[in-house]
Amino acid sequence: MSGPIVCFGELLLRLSAPGRELLMQSPRLDIVVGGAEANVAAGLAALDHPTALVSTLPDNALGRGAVAAMRAAGVDTARVTTGPGRMGLYFLSPGAGVRAADIVYDRAGSAFVEASDYDWPALLEGAARLHLSGITPALGQASAAHALAAARAARAAGVPVSFDGNYRARLWESWASDPRGVLTELVAQADLFFGNHRDVALLTGRNVREARAAAEVAFAAFPNLTVIASTARTVIDADHHRLSARFDTPDAAYETEEIAVTGIVDRIGGGDAFAAGILHGLHAGLTPQETVEAGLALAALKHSLPGDFSRFTRADLAAFQAGARDVRR
Amino acid sequence: MSGPIVCFGELLLRLSAPGRELLMQSPRLDIVVGGAEANVAAGLAALDHPTALVSTLPDNALGRGAVAAMRAAGVDTARVTTGPGRMGLYFLSPGAGVRAADIVYDRAGSAFVEASDYDWPALLEGAARLHLSGITPALGQASAAHALAAARAARAAGVPVSFDGNYRARLWESWASDPRGVLTELVAQADLFFGNHRDVALLTGRNVREARAAAEVAFAAFPNLTVIASTARTVIDADHHRLSARFDTPDAAYETEEIAVTGIVDRIGGGDAFAAGILHGLHAGLTPQETVEAGLALAALKHSLPGDFSRFTRADLAAFQAGARDVRR
Amino acid sequence: MSGPIVCFGELLLRLSAPGRELLMQSPRLDIVVGGAEANVAAGLAALDHPTALVSTLPDNALGRGAVAAMRAAGVDTARVTTGPGRMGLYFLSPGAGVRAADIVYDRAGSAFVEASDYDWPALLEGAARLHLSGITPALGQASAAHALAAARAARAAGVPVSFDGNYRARLWESWASDPRGVLTELVAQADLFFGNHRDVALLTGRNVREARAAAEVAFAAFPNLTVIASTARTVIDADHHRLSARFDTPDAAYETEEIAVTGIVDRIGGGDAFAAGILHGLHAGLTPQETVEAGLALAALKHSLPGDFSRFTRADLAAFQAGARDVRR
Amino acid sequence: MSGPIVCFGELLLRLSAPGRELLMQSPRLDIVVGGAEANVAAGLAALDHPTALVSTLPDNALGRGAVAAMRAAGVDTARVTTGPGRMGLYFLSPGAGVRAADIVYDRAGSAFVEASDYDWPALLEGAARLHLSGITPALGQASAAHALAAARAARAAGVPVSFDGNYRARLWESWASDPRGVLTELVAQADLFFGNHRDVALLTGRNVREARAAAEVAFAAFPNLTVIASTARTVIDADHHRLSARFDTPDAAYETEEIAVTGIVDRIGGGDAFAAGILHGLHAGLTPQETVEAGLALAALKHSLPGDFSRFTRADLAAFQAGARDVRR
Amino acid sequence: MSGPIVCFGELLLRLSAPGRELLMQSPRLDIVVGGAEANVAAGLAALDHPTALVSTLPDNALGRGAVAAMRAAGVDTARVTTGPGRMGLYFLSPGAGVRAADIVYDRAGSAFVEASDYDWPALLEGAARLHLSGITPALGQASAAHALAAARAARAAGVPVSFDGNYRARLWESWASDPRGVLTELVAQADLFFGNHRDVALLTGRNVREARAAAEVAFAAFPNLTVIASTARTVIDADHHRLSARFDTPDAAYETEEIAVTGIVDRIGGGDAFAAGILHGLHAGLTPQETVEAGLALAALKHSLPGDFSRFTRADLAAFQAGARDVRR
Amino acid sequence: MSGPIVCFGELLLRLSAPGRELLMQSPRLDIVVGGAEANVAAGLAALDHPTALVSTLPDNALGRGAVAAMRAAGVDTARVTTGPGRMGLYFLSPGAGVRAADIVYDRAGSAFVEASDYDWPALLEGAARLHLSGITPALGQASAAHALAAARAARAAGVPVSFDGNYRARLWESWASDPRGVLTELVAQADLFFGNHRDVALLTGRNVREARAAAEVAFAAFPNLTVIASTARTVIDADHHRLSARFDTPDAAYETEEIAVTGIVDRIGGGDAFAAGILHGLHAGLTPQETVEAGLALAALKHSLPGDFSRFTRADLAAFQAGARDVRR
Repeated sequence: MSGPIVCFGELLLRLSAPGRELLMQSPRLDIVVGGAEANVAAGLAALDHPTALVSTLPDNALGRGAVAAMRAAGVDTARVTTGPGRMGLYFLSPGAGVRAADIVYDRAGSAFVEASDYDWPALLEGAARLHLSGITPALGQASAAHALAAARAARAAGVPVSFDGNYRARLWESWASDPRGVLTELVAQADLFFGNHRDVALLTGRNVREARAAAEVAFAAFPNLTVIASTARTVIDADHHRLSARFDTPDAAYETEEIAVTGIVDRIGGGDAFAAGILHGLHAGLTPQETVEAGLALAALKHSLPGDFSRFTRADLAAFQAGARDVRR
Repeated sequence: MSGPIVCFGELLLRLSAPGRELLMQSPRLDIVVGGAEANVAAGLAALDHPTALVSTLPDNALGRGAVAAMRAAGVDTARVTTGPGRMGLYFLSPGAGVRAADIVYDRAGSAFVEASDYDWPALLEGAARLHLSGITPALGQASAAHALAAARAARAAGVPVSFDGNYRARLWESWASDPRGVLTELVAQADLFFGNHRDVALLTGRNVREARAAAEVAFAAFPNLTVIASTARTVIDADHHRLSARFDTPDAAYETEEIAVTGIVDRIGGGDAFAAGILHGLHAGLTPQETVEAGLALAALKHSLPGDFSRFTRADLAAFQAGARDVRR
Repeated sequence: MSGPIVCFGELLLRLSAPGRELLMQSPRLDIVVGGAEANVAAGLAALDHPTALVSTLPDNALGRGAVAAMRAAGVDTARVTTGPGRMGLYFLSPGAGVRAADIVYDRAGSAFVEASDYDWPALLEGAARLHLSGITPALGQASAAHALAAARAARAAGVPVSFDGNYRARLWESWASDPRGVLTELVAQADLFFGNHRDVALLTGRNVREARAAAEVAFAAFPNLTVIASTARTVIDADHHRLSARFDTPDAAYETEEIAVTGIVDRIGGGDAFAAGILHGLHAGLTPQETVEAGLALAALKHSLPGDFSRFTRADLAAFQAGARDVRR
Repeated sequence: MSGPIVCFGELLLRLSAPGRELLMQSPRLDIVVGGAEANVAAGLAALDHPTALVSTLPDNALGRGAVAAMRAAGVDTARVTTGPGRMGLYFLSPGAGVRAADIVYDRAGSAFVEASDYDWPALLEGAARLHLSGITPALGQASAAHALAAARAARAAGVPVSFDGNYRARLWESWASDPRGVLTELVAQADLFFGNHRDVALLTGRNVREARAAAEVAFAAFPNLTVIASTARTVIDADHHRLSARFDTPDAAYETEEIAVTGIVDRIGGGDAFAAGILHGLHAGLTPQETVEAGLALAALKHSLPGDFSRFTRADLAAFQAGARDVRR
Repeated sequence: MSGPIVCFGELLLRLSAPGRELLMQSPRLDIVVGGAEANVAAGLAALDHPTALVSTLPDNALGRGAVAAMRAAGVDTARVTTGPGRMGLYFLSPGAGVRAADIVYDRAGSAFVEASDYDWPALLEGAARLHLSGITPALGQASAAHALAAARAARAAGVPVSFDGNYRARLWESWASDPRGVLTELVAQADLFFGNHRDVALLTGRNVREARAAAEVAFAAFPNLTVIASTARTVIDADHHRLSARFDTPDAAYETEEIAVTGIVDRIGGGDAFAAGILHGLHAGLTPQETVEAGLALAALKHSLPGDFSRFTRADLAAFQAGARDVRR
Repeated sequence: MSGPIVCFGELLLRLSAPGRELLMQSPRLDIVVGGAEANVAAGLAALDHPTALVSTLPDNALGRGAVAAMRAAGVDTARVTTGPGRMGLYFLSPGAGVRAADIVYDRAGSAFVEASDYDWPALLEGAARLHLSGITPALGQASAAHALAAARAARAAGVPVSFDGNYRARLWESWASDPRGVLTELVAQADLFFGNHRDVALLTGRNVREARAAAEVAFAAFPNLTVIASTARTVIDADHHRLSARFDTPDAAYETEEIAVTGIVDRIGGGDAFAAGILHGLHAGLTPQETVEAGLALAALKHSLPGDFSRFTRADLAAFQAGARDVRR
C-alpha cells in the first residue's frame, strides 16, 4: 500500500511564554502549531512517509496559518476543511529545572469540536493507515462519534488503524462521557495500540502492573491487535528525563535500554514522536527491535527541539543511533 | 469629590503579529492588555487621577496577568473579580501604509460575558464618576443588564455617568439585541456623552449631519446631558490620519483645529485616550476649550505609542501642546 | 483549463539586516524565501489559483527550508528537484527614508545554476500556464537554455506562456551573453509579456518612450503576444513611491490612476505581485480594466508586507479596492 | 494582625546581557526590577499576603517604571516617595555552566541613598511586620540611620521585625562604616533573623561553625529573637546548586533534606524567596517544619524563573511540594 | 598631513526603549555607543580618514565594550585611558510621529568627568586635526580645563582645531559655569567652527539672525576662523525634518537646497554626521560647495540609520548624491 | 619579543539557527564571526597580547563587518586585504541535549580561497609568533601553498611557528590533496604543535595510542618541536563534555585533571581557546603546568559563551581557576 497515513485530530495553537518565563511575565507569546495526531503526521512526513491530515479549522488567519504549518511540514492538507467555531488554543508556561511546565487550556468551542460530519469512505480512500488518539473522543459527544466512525470505516475498508491512548482525564470529566465504552470500541478496531499498563487497566478493568502481562491482557481483550507499543518515563526534573520503550506482539516482546534524555528543550510531542518512530519502523519494513529503537530514538530527539513536531530525517535518526552527540562537521 | 473614576468593562488580551507582519507570518505574538473602558482608566491614571476598574476575569495566568497590567498602569483593581469562563482575546494583523489592520475576534464565552452579578451600590461608593461604553451592552443580554444596572445605580447615588458610544454593529448583530432601546436608556443616565452625529442618529432616529445641530438634537433628547464630545477623523492611510475634536454644551460649542497625526504606531485606543483627555479636563478643572484641546492632544499622542493605553503624564501633554516634536534633551 | 500555473525559476534566501539597520550592524539576519517566479506562484496561490514551482535546490537544510516555505504558501513543490551546488543567497541592507536599500549578491554556483536537465513535456503536463522571467536566462548558458526549452515545450503543448522582462544588466554582463537574442526568442513564445518601453527597446532596438506606442512596437514584433502589462513607478524615497499600471492588448489600452504607495515596509516582490495580480485577473475571468486594477492593488499591498510574497486573499484585495485603510474590526 | 508586611529597601534596575552572553557582547540589555527587600515583598504578595514597600526613587521614567513593576507584582507602593538622585543600577553578565555570573555595580548617588527622612510611625501604622535586610545599612551613614530608625519605631509600636543578614563586604568597605555595631543594634530589634553561622560570627565575634550551636549563640546574644532561619548552599556550577534549609527556635531545630536545584535559570533573588517562604509560613500559620519546607521550596522554585521576584502562588508551591516536575496538563 | 583626526570627548552608552516604546514599557533596552566627538570620529573613519579618540572610561565591561565599539568603527583607541568613576549613560524614549523623543540623563560621576590629566603634546603628536565640541567644557570645571588645554596645545603644535558649538544649557546650568568665557577661548583656537547665529549670539553677545551676517560677526570676533559651517533644521514631526546647510568663509558663502529628511529612523548624531561630512570635504580636498553638499548628505543619511554613528562609505555618499532611493541591485 | 602574534587563516561567518532550533525552523539567523586562527587571535587579544590577523576578504558589507568584529576583539587588522571572491559562510543548527549540532558548509569560492599572493617577509616583520592551523592548507592548492610559504618565511626570519592540527577530512577529500605531505612540511617548521595521537598517526604513519608515547614519536620526527599540547574530550551529550589537557616537551609531560564542562552554551571555538590559553602561558612566562592549566581553563570557559571567541580577561581566568562558580558580586 503506497497511499498516505491518514491522521485525524484537532490542530491547536500552542501559545508559550518565551524563554523560561511564566505566561504574561513578558508581553510576548511564541506560537507552535500542533496536536497529537498532527504531530504524528508531521513526524512521519519528515521521515519521507506520505501523510495526510483530516481536521476542521476556522476560516480565519489562525486556521489558515495552522494549515500552512502542516503543509510546510510536508503533510497533505487537502482533507482539512473549515467550519464555524474558533481556533483551539492552549497557553503554556514552559518548565525549567525544578519547575514543572503549566498549561491554560482554551479549546472550548473550537471548529474541530463543532464539526458536523466527515465522509470517511472518501477521506480514507487509498490510505495506508488511519491514525487516531484518545484525545479526539475525549473532546465531546460529536468528536467521539467522529472518531468511532473513522475507525469503523477504516476497518471496513481494510485500512489498518493505530490508536494512541493519550488518556486525558480532565477532558473526559468535562462532559457526560463514558471513556471506557468509547475507548474500548476504538481499540477494538485497531491493529496497533500505543499504551501502557495504565491504559490497559482503564480499558479492561484489570490492573496488571507488569508490562508484558498487561500487554497479554490487552491482546486477549482485543483480538485485532497485533502490536502494543509504549514508553516508560522517569522524570528527574523538567530538563532531564529517563526513557525506555517496548514493543509487544502476541508472541514476543522487544525492549530498549533506558536512556537519559538530558538538556530537554521541549517535551511536548515526545510521545507523538515515539508513535511516529514506531509507524516509521512498521511502514519502512524494519524489524521489531529496530522499530522500537527507532521509536525511542525519535522520541528522545524530539525533546531536543522546540515545537510539537519531530522534524528529523532518516539521516538524523541514523546519526543519533550511531552515537553522534558532538558537532557533525 | 476625591474618589476614583470607576470604569466598568471587559479586559481583553490583544495578540498581535510582530512588526508589520500578518498573523501567523512569524511564529510569535505580542501581547497588549486593553479594553475600551480599561484604556480610559489607564489613561486617566497616568494623568494622576484616581481610577478603579470593575470587571470579571478568569482565575488563571492570563487573567492574573491582565490585572497586573492594570495595576502597573496605576488603576485600582480591588473591584475586579474572577469567575468561570475564558479570557477574552482578539488577534491583530497591524496595518501598514496602504494596508488596513485586520482583526480576528475571539471573545465568546469570556468570564466577563459570563459574569453573574455586581453589587453596584458597593462598587460605586465614593466614586467620582462612572464611565461606561457601548461595547459592554453589545456583548449580550447579561452584559447589557449589568451596564444598565451600573448606570442607574450611579445616577441614584448622585455619581455622574459618562458614556462612550463605541457602536460595534458586529457585536450587536450577534444576538437578539435592541441596540437603540438599550443605548437610549444608558445615555439617559449620563451627563457626558462621547459620540458624533452618527451616534445621535442611531439613538434618536434623526439623521442630522452637521455636528452642532446633531448635538442639539441629543441635548433635546437627553436632558441629563451637559456635555457631548467627539472627534472627526480622516484616514489617509494606516500611518497617517487627520483628527479634530469638538466639545458641545447645551449653550456653546468648542472646536479644535484639525491636526495631522503622522507616523502612526498604534491606532487602537486613540478614541479612549480622547475620552481620558476630556475627563481629565473636566476633573482637573480646565476650561471647555482647554479640555477639548487636551482630549485631542492625548488622542494624537496615543497614536504614537504601542499598546492600548495612553501612558502620558501631564508633563508629556504640556510638552506636546507646547509644540515639542524634536528630541527633548 | 484547471491545471496549475507552472512557474520556473530559482528559489533564493534573502538574508536581511533586522529593522532598519545595515548588514552586520547587529549580529542577526532575517530570512525571507523568494525569487521572482516563486513570488508569482505564491501570490497566485494566496488568491486560490493552483500553482506549481519547477526549480532545483541543494539537498540540505537550506534547500529543504526553502521548499517548506513554498509549500506553506500553498504552491505545489512536487516538481522541485535537488542537485549539486549551493543555496542561492543574497544579503540585504533594507532601505529607510532617504537611504536606498543595498544588496550583496551571493548566488554563484547555486544548485539552480548547476542544474542539468528538465523533462519539460512531463513538467508541463496539464499546466494552465507557464510563467518565466528574464532573471533565469540571465544566470548563464545552461539556465538560458532551460528557459528556452521550457518556453518552446509549452508552446508546443499549447500551454500559454507569460514572460516577465525583469532585465538585470549585472547578471547578463557576468558571462558571454547575448541578452537580446535570448530574450527575443523567449518573448516570441509568450502570449503575455510584462515589460515597459525600456524592455521593448532592449528587445527590438526601437527606443519609443511613449507607452502605447512602445506596446504597439512589441505587438508588431511578437505576433503571439496578446497582452503587455507594466507599471510605472516614481520613487519619492525608500518609504514612499507612486505607482500606476497599464494593460495593453493589440486593440486597446487600459490604464489605472497613479496611486501613492506610502509607509513602504518591503518593496521587494512588488513587481512579482503585480504579475500575480494580472495573472489572477486573466485566470479568474476579470475584464481587462478589472485585471489591471487588481494588478496595481496587489502590487501596492505587497509593499506593506515583509517578505517577497504577496499573501493577500481575494477578500484582502476586495477590501483594499473598497478603500479600507483603517482597522477592519 | 491583618495589615501589610512592610518592606524597606532600595529598588534597583538589573540590566543584564541577553541569553548567556557577556555584557556588551550584543547591543541589548534585559531589565529586571528588584532589590532584596522588594523581592521579599513581591514574593509574599504572590502568596496573597498584603505587602507594602517603603522606598525612595527618582522622579523619572526609570523610577516610575520600577514602581509600576512593584504594583504589577501586587505590592502596595503608596509609601514609595520620590527624591533627588539617580536610579540605582547594576549590570549583569549572567553565568552559564562553569562560568560564574559577574556584576558591575552602579548604585552610587541613588535617590534611595540620598533620601533624607522617613516618618516611621506613620509608615508603619497598622503594619503586620517590618522587614529589613543588611544591604540598606551598608549603603551609607544615612541609610544605616534610616534602617535603625525604622527598626526602633517598629519595636516601639509592637510591630515585629525581621532582618535578613545579606552581608555585603564590598558595600560596607566603601565608607567609614562600623558593620558590627550597626548590625548588632538592628538584630537586637528583630524577632526573626535570616542568617547562618558566618552572620552570627560577624555579629557576636564567636566563630561557631556548627549550625545549631551558632543559632544558640545568637539566641543568647539577642534575646528578642524567636526564630533564626537559613539555607546552606553548595554550588556545583552556575546551573546546578544543592540547597537545604533550617529553622531554629530557642527550643528546637527544624531542618530539610538537601535538594538538587538543577537547570538554574536565574539565581538572583533565591535568598529573598527563601525569606518570603519563611514569612509566608509564619503569617499563614504553618508549623515550623512546614514553614522551613515552604522556604526551601520557594527558594528552589525561584531559581527556575527569570527575574528577581518569586511569582509563585500557593497552588504552585503545593504542586512543587507534591512533586510536580512534568507538564501540568 | 597623514596623521589621524583626533577627537576628544566622552563616550556614553545610550540605553533606548525598543521599537517605538517608552522607557520601561517593555523590559528591554537597546544599547548604542556614542558621544558627539566619538560620532565624528566614527563617521570620518567610515569615509576612510584615519581618526583617533582621546577619552577616559571606567575599567569594566561597559567601558571595554564602548572601546570595542569604537575600534569596530575603525577609530584608533590607543589614546583612550581608564580611570575611576562610572560609565556615562543616558536613557532614551525614542520619538515617533507626533511624539518627541525624551531623555533621562545619567552621566554624573562618570570616569570622563572625573578624569585628572591628559598629556596633550603626546596625544596630539602627528595629528592632522583636533576636533572638540561644546559638550565637553559644559560637563564641569575639570572637563572645561581639559578642553582648553587640548585646544591650546593643538594651536601651539600647529594642529588645526575644529569646534562644534553643541550648546547644552542644561549641562552648563548644573554648575557655577561661565559658558561664554570658556567657549570664547575655545573658539579662539579654532580654524573651523560648527555653529549658527544662535551660537554666534552666545559667543559675541550680538544677536544677528541673518546667517551670513552672523558668520561675518564671528569671523570678525575670531580671526583664526577660516570656516563656519551650520545646518538649518525644520522639524515637521519626529519622522520628518527639513534640512539645509551652509559653509561660510570670510570671503564667500556656500549653501545647499533645503531637502526633506523623511522616514527618520534615528535623529541622534545627525549634527555629528554633518561635522564628519564637512571634515571629510576639507581633508579629502573637495571644493567648498562639494564639502557643504557632502555635509548635508551625510547628515541626511545618518537620520536613516539606527545608532549614533554615520557608517556610510564614500560609495554610499556618492550613491545618495546621485539620487539613489530605490533598491541598489 | 614585543611584536604581535600573527595568525593566518580564513574569517568565516557562522550563521546559526536561534535558540535551540534547527536551521530554517524560524526565519532568522544569528551571525558569529570566527575561524580557527582568528579565534586564537581574539582569545589572545582578550588576554592583553598584541595579535594581528593576516587574511583576505571580499570588499563588501560582509567582509567589512567581519573585519570590524576582529577590530572590536582587539586584533590588529591592518594586514587583512580584500580580493575577488565571496564571503566564506557556514550554517549551523546548534546542538541541544541528546541532539548533535549540524553544519551546512558554504565556503567554496571564498575570497580567502581565491587569494593570490602574500608578502610574507613584510607581513611577519616584528612578529612575536606565527600561528597556523590545518584548516588553511586543507582548503586547496593555493591555500596550502600560502600556509607553507608563511611557515617557511617565519622560520627563515626566526619567528616561532605554532601549528594546530585541526584535521578536517571532508576538506582534504574535496580536492586532489596530499594531506600528509603538506602537513608534515608545515609541522617541520613549527616549535609548537597542537595535536593528539591521531594527528601524530596521520603525520608519521605510526599509530601510537598512548599520549606520551605519541608525543615522543612526534618529537623524534620533528626535531624543531619543543612543545606538543592537546586536550582529551569525552562527549556525554551536546550540553556536557569532560575535558583534560596535556603539555609535552621532549623531556617532560604536564597533565591536568579531567574536568566536567557542563551547561555548554557554544562548543565551537573551544579548541582555539585552548590554543590561545597555551600561547598565553608561553608568552606570559607561565610555567608549563600553569600553562596547561590556563589552556584547559580557557577552553572550558569558552564553552560557556556564545560565539567563536574566548572573550575572557586575565581576571576572568583567575576567577575561574580560583573556583568562582556563583555570582561574583
